[in-house]
Amino acid sequence: MACKFTVTRRVEFPETDLSGAVHFANFYRYMELAEHAFFRSLGLSIHDPAPEAVKWPRVRVSCDISGRLEFEDEIEIQLLVRERRARSIVYDFTLRKLNRQTPSEVARGSFAVACVRKDAATGAMRSVPIPESIARLIEPAPTELLAS
Amino acid sequence: MACKFTVTRRVEFPETDLSGAVHFANFYRYMELAEHAFFRSLGLSIHDPAPEAVKWPRVRVSCDISGRLEFEDEIEIQLLVRERRARSIVYDFTLRKLNRQTPSEVARGSFAVACVRKDAATGAMRSVPIPESIARLIEPAPTELLAS
Amino acid sequence: MACKFTVTRRVEFPETDLSGAVHFANFYRYMELAEHAFFRSLGLSIHDPAPEAVKWPRVRVSCDISGRLEFEDEIEIQLLVRERRARSIVYDFTLRKLNRQTPSEVARGSFAVACVRKDAATGAMRSVPIPESIARLIEPAPTELLAS
Amino acid sequence: MACKFTVTRRVEFPETDLSGAVHFANFYRYMELAEHAFFRSLGLSIHDPAPEAVKWPRVRVSCDISGRLEFEDEIEIQLLVRERRARSIVYDFTLRKLNRQTPSEVARGSFAVACVRKDAATGAMRSVPIPESIARLIEPAPTELLAS
Repeated sequence: MACKFTVTRRVEFPETDLSGAVHFANFYRYMELAEHAFFRSLGLSIHDPAPEAVKWPRVRVSCDISGRLEFEDEIEIQLLVRERRARSIVYDFTLRKLNRQTPSEVARGSFAVACVRKDAATGAMRSVPIPESIARLIEPAPTELLAS
Repeated sequence: MACKFTVTRRVEFPETDLSGAVHFANFYRYMELAEHAFFRSLGLSIHDPAPEAVKWPRVRVSCDISGRLEFEDEIEIQLLVRERRARSIVYDFTLRKLNRQTPSEVARGSFAVACVRKDAATGAMRSVPIPESIARLIEPAPTELLAS
Repeated sequence: MACKFTVTRRVEFPETDLSGAVHFANFYRYMELAEHAFFRSLGLSIHDPAPEAVKWPRVRVSCDISGRLEFEDEIEIQLLVRERRARSIVYDFTLRKLNRQTPSEVARGSFAVACVRKDAATGAMRSVPIPESIARLIEPAPTELLAS
Repeated sequence: MACKFTVTRRVEFPETDLSGAVHFANFYRYMELAEHAFFRSLGLSIHDPAPEAVKWPRVRVSCDISGRLEFEDEIEIQLLVRERRARSIVYDFTLRKLNRQTPSEVARGSFAVACVRKDAATGAMRSVPIPESIARLIEPAPTELLAS
């Protein structure tokens, strides 16, 4: 079971804007990278093409921004599982710059994602329990790891 | 003085992802569009190239997603000024699909933005009071317009 | 029958990069906008969800860049049909800035797109003749309109 | 001196579109990644913040697309220096999928980039000779490496 995952990535040129720093919407792309790599680390894919596979739409996302990311910065994105409920997961993320004398935090964010499956009859996406084969791989992080 | 602004935009192809719907990070681009158009409607630009001009970095952003946006959907993005403090503004946004029988809400979001200026001595960005020339154009929306 | 279409669009903030101007990859997004709006103007959609519908993957794309686009610039994107072959179309595009004293050209580009359909037996995409219902709506632009 | 560089990168979710594959404009982002990593490998940065530093705007870019890239595909992007002229460089790129039984080519592209510097008097960007400190690090690839 896993509750934590960390990836690194270098800021790419088109992710910056004319302010000279990374556009804030890309902070969400970085956080999502960590979620997708977390799934790969569990032998899963966030996008399973099987028709009966569950999907993970975002229901609530937020980000507190305390610093700037610049071109060619190396970022560490840490994912922590805050909650694993029956039909949803809440992830917390921390973004840090690694390429400075002192690694510094630039943002914290959170994703609440629902577990859904296409209803065979209606074609609509419906909330469903997280399949046991996935749920048994994911556990909430210990309280002391989570930001208050 | 203004407290409200609405823009429309059509979903563009590269804004979708392999789920078939708009990638959620683009919801922030749509909300930002409304903020920038709101500034233009006041005779301002969110990006004033003058060196002494104030900038508006995002400090806290969030989004609650309740629906899907798809290719060629026409979206209405409504901005409301929730708070105008001395050194920051909080905007609320509502995204609705217009091209269906019944316009339907797909997301609500919020941006808290700081007013900052480059310190001539240190080169660092510092929080500053919103200039009077800008503050006098922007007012908080009446409580009854704001979501609880 | 149509051979020409023009759309306008304002440069959005995240389309710029730290050079202060629009990132060149977005020039292709602007050109594609004109192609998709051209299809809508003919009562079509570039993305028809019907399983037997044809798709239009890009086979060769190019762009000559002669100017900069900046935040809030208003752009005119002109599409001309250069060639309509049995199984492909070649479009030429011109991008101009409208919001200056003199509208000025900033780029010219070209897309060669193939007409393909999913093979029911193998699931692979195969080149197919442009359906008559579409082909009869699109005609090559007169030679005098096309750049040499 | 170097004439060749190779980077790898995994396809990220927001780079796909509703066709299920990577949006073609992102092929240019992948090619640019290799150019920027090539500069880093030479101890340079494509974005040198010094005011007198040269910049490298794209003048002509093109791409021939022969395959699809999908979510989580691992891509190899190979850069070759086709020409190093006095005031410009031409790069050729090849994109291959690595995560299949047989690595397969999906695209070939080319960038012609100009060497420019801001004119201190007018503020305009002017074509200038590639500085000797950069030119001596970059050499054209041997003819046998270049596609015909």
